[in-house]
Amino acid sequence: MAEKRTELTELGEFGLIDRIEKQFSLQNSTSVKGIGDDAALISVGDDYLVVSTDMLLEGIHFDLSYVPLQHLGYKAVAVNVSDIAAMNAIPEQITIGLAFSNRFSLEAIDTLYSGIKSACENFKVDLVGGDTSSSASGLVISITAIGRVAKNKVALRNTAKANDIVCVTGDLGAAYLGLQVLEREKQVFLTNPEMQPELEKYEYLVGRQLKPEARMDIVYELADKNIVPTAMIDVSDGLASELLHLAKSSGLGIKVFEENVPIDSLTFETAIEFKIDPITCALNGGEDYELLFTIAPSDHEKLKNHPDIHFIGHMHTNAAQNVMVTKQQTVVPLKAQGWNHLR
Amino acid sequence: MAEKRTELTELGEFGLIDRIEKQFSLQNSTSVKGIGDDAALISVGDDYLVVSTDMLLEGIHFDLSYVPLQHLGYKAVAVNVSDIAAMNAIPEQITIGLAFSNRFSLEAIDTLYSGIKSACENFKVDLVGGDTSSSASGLVISITAIGRVAKNKVALRNTAKANDIVCVTGDLGAAYLGLQVLEREKQVFLTNPEMQPELEKYEYLVGRQLKPEARMDIVYELADKNIVPTAMIDVSDGLASELLHLAKSSGLGIKVFEENVPIDSLTFETAIEFKIDPITCALNGGEDYELLFTIAPSDHEKLKNHPDIHFIGHMHTNAAQNVMVTKQQTVVPLKAQGWNHLR
Repeated sequence: MAEKRTELTELGEFGLIDRIEKQFSLQNSTSVKGIGDDAALISVGDDYLVVSTDMLLEGIHFDLSYVPLQHLGYKAVAVNVSDIAAMNAIPEQITIGLAFSNRFSLEAIDTLYSGIKSACENFKVDLVGGDTSSSASGLVISITAIGRVAKNKVALRNTAKANDIVCVTGDLGAAYLGLQVLEREKQVFLTNPEMQPELEKYEYLVGRQLKPEARMDIVYELADKNIVPTAMIDVSDGLASELLHLAKSSGLGIKVFEENVPIDSLTFETAIEFKIDPITCALNGGEDYELLFTIAPSDHEKLKNHPDIHFIGHMHTNAAQNVMVTKQQTVVPLKAQGWNHLR
Repeated sequence: MAEKRTELTELGEFGLIDRIEKQFSLQNSTSVKGIGDDAALISVGDDYLVVSTDMLLEGIHFDLSYVPLQHLGYKAVAVNVSDIAAMNAIPEQITIGLAFSNRFSLEAIDTLYSGIKSACENFKVDLVGGDTSSSASGLVISITAIGRVAKNKVALRNTAKANDIVCVTGDLGAAYLGLQVLEREKQVFLTNPEMQPELEKYEYLVGRQLKPEARMDIVYELADKNIVPTAMIDVSDGLASELLHLAKSSGLGIKVFEENVPIDSLTFETAIEFKIDPITCALNGGEDYELLFTIAPSDHEKLKNHPDIHFIGHMHTNAAQNVMVTKQQTVVPLKAQGWNHLR
């Protein structure tokens, strides 16, 4: 009799993570929070160390035909720092596991590390260890980032309160459209290698895709204003997916307003050019690495004039109702169509 | 003009690590030790957190045609715990980055995690986070292990003293011969699929290859006896390579005696069968995951009757002289021919 075979696509990435989480329980008193947030929490005196791991694989997460190695190194660090920022923590150390085939020269690896170094300097993190190995095919980068936060300042996903205001930083959808532009230019080049790629017009979008920043500036500013977000998550899989994570883990519902979702004008125009609804890019594009957080209504006053923080909605007690009010004032359910790497 | 291309094989893995280490300096006061030991050290009050990352790639580090997924999960955790043990620390948490192609079913991933879980229980570590992703080809496992040790108990590589006694646990060379047996049986099977593999006789060797243990028992025993090793490293790349690491980083020379290097009788016989000198397996085989450490001569008394700790030599002040005294009483230089994954 054949053994049962279940395809992982039936479960999806989040389904698999839930399944793993259920199988493992925490035994050590220093393990305060395990799977299920942007980062794990380890108790050290009055602080938590926060630990996050991300893996980037060639052919899945990046295409070296248009991703410069230096940017890739920078991005690999930035996306991990973003997970630390999402805990309201300050990053301090990273370790890097790197595997590459013999098609990579020493000069190529040096270029990759120059991007890593630039990110380490920018985010003030120390590269403290890692592992290098050969790979049978593509480049694999695995980064673990470690940060620190006072126990009474940590921001989890599951602690939003009803009536809290939902905030998001920066603008959304640009990185997704940057990827569409790069993919289009790659196809043009493959068809006709004489053609030079037309990227100048899309510089902002392409930059958001290739060299995203982690919003540590926001973490420092919130601390300056003495604001601890009631909950926080970074926007890596698309705003809709993260809104639903925040609502579900807090046991609440969420209501957002389309007109308040920040979209850059170039993102808007380029979405139209690609015949995609701009709000779809913002909700489901992913890789924005902005911060999505909730604040107590009493903190609104302190942030209301901030140029880069947008108030897009609020939390409410009806956990079954996660909705967006469109510009036409119709109420539509929020759905996550974010990236699914197990697709 | 063509850009310069230097092959990574010219540099080797250790050369590359040295190169990376030189490019990065530590900025944060909590980063006490970076690249260059089994694990990094992060200061937390009176303790250090020790952090180590290892990456295992299909086709490079393991061959799924004979490595059971459950054992692979166990081994992936054990080899990381071994790095924590090598700092004289107690492991507490791990994160796991996992990438796999769609040829893996949910049942296969469950089997892998059952091995991971078994190791977590055995070594009392908590799985606190990670990342799952698809891969274009093979399975990739990246593990970061975090442990803790009192600052005055940590064992580094570079702190051995002249006249310290060099100790190694268990026996060496078995995992390497286990791999040779598995590779031979694979070839037999490929030639004639009707043949059943003959592994029973080699069970110990194959077990050492497929399901190694981290020597946490030794870490606990040394603590019980109130012994802090003056230096320690785990034997992953072969005894010779680790002896040279210890000597070089401590700025000393090392002298070991072939007759004291522990080799199991089955390892000895099987080496002869494979027409390899048994001492070569012990010196250069790798993947033993035993502990190699130095103790002050005054601690010898406390350990001299330990059944699983072997006194193989001593440290001396002539840093240029790293030698082995053979059974024939000739003095030969120690050379590392250990595994080089960048080969």
